[in-house]
Amino acid sequence: MSQPRTVAVIVGSLRKDSVTRKVARAIEALAPPHLKFDEIPIGDLPLYNQDSESDPPPADVAFRDRVRAADAVLFATPEYNRSVPGGLKNALDVGSRPYGHSVWNGKPAAVVSVSPGAIGGFGANHHLRQSLVFLNMPVLQQPEAYVGNAFSLFDENGELVNEATAEFLRAFAQTFADWIEQTAPAAAR
Amino acid sequence: MSQPRTVAVIVGSLRKDSVTRKVARAIEALAPPHLKFDEIPIGDLPLYNQDSESDPPPADVAFRDRVRAADAVLFATPEYNRSVPGGLKNALDVGSRPYGHSVWNGKPAAVVSVSPGAIGGFGANHHLRQSLVFLNMPVLQQPEAYVGNAFSLFDENGELVNEATAEFLRAFAQTFADWIEQTAPAAAR
Repeated sequence: MSQPRTVAVIVGSLRKDSVTRKVARAIEALAPPHLKFDEIPIGDLPLYNQDSESDPPPADVAFRDRVRAADAVLFATPEYNRSVPGGLKNALDVGSRPYGHSVWNGKPAAVVSVSPGAIGGFGANHHLRQSLVFLNMPVLQQPEAYVGNAFSLFDENGELVNEATAEFLRAFAQTFADWIEQTAPAAAR
Repeated sequence: MSQPRTVAVIVGSLRKDSVTRKVARAIEALAPPHLKFDEIPIGDLPLYNQDSESDPPPADVAFRDRVRAADAVLFATPEYNRSVPGGLKNALDVGSRPYGHSVWNGKPAAVVSVSPGAIGGFGANHHLRQSLVFLNMPVLQQPEAYVGNAFSLFDENGELVNEATAEFLRAFAQTFADWIEQTAPAAAR
């Protein structure tokens, strides 16, 4: 049996009833049981300002500590204006600083983008991937996860009712679990 | 003589001593005198949350009103993690909502990216441009403005001391002024 792995979950939408969060929850439910998920909220992080680096806001310190403790990161993002939400990008920026102390560095990652429309958040998904290159996170390449028409996939209780999507997300979660074992820093193996 | 035009200036860095702001100020100083510049701060905008749309934060309302009053927008952005800062993306998101009431719609825009390194913020510049497509802002295409090695361009008083950069920014500002006349909504002509 695989050893337990903690996966930080970063959800890009701040809405309480976010469909992006529902997709993240569905992935968690369908994933192999040795993956333990920890959604880390990003809504209370102040906008990153380099002038605060010598005396960082307590919310930044707590956020960085919690990401640092994770073995891997799952990013679940909606698309705002063909990119990631400002709040999600801000969380990336906060975690990346100060220079040389990024909490993202080297952690295996996966990206799922979610949208009510047909394109499935492609613009957000790939903008995020460009930042993850710089942040040196080995990102799961395949299967890509663009979840479109997202409102139609859940019932009124937030349960995933689309069987094809469930099968896809189960495979996505399993492949991500394998990817974590392959790419986790040697110290964590 | 051209009629006066108000250009909203959105600076992506929140640092007090931001070199990106220095570049924006240099453009303002070199621009034709009928352009009036108004830097609209973005650092106090809460992270966009759709749950607040029915009762928007006062900072959002004030920001939207001030952008709405402008004839055009100059975006000056540093690059954070190969993209725009979260704070700048958040300002775009705030201004774009609620649906159908985006304050960006149709306004002529220009983008200058600024970095201490050699690439001149190319990643941020083009991520921003992708969002501006969706936001339906006619963006000045040429000359592209990637200002690299930015710390070397200013003296200790924040004065632009690189003559080639000054010439470039003067031409950039003039072309932007022409672009505004060409593309401003008919009602503003």
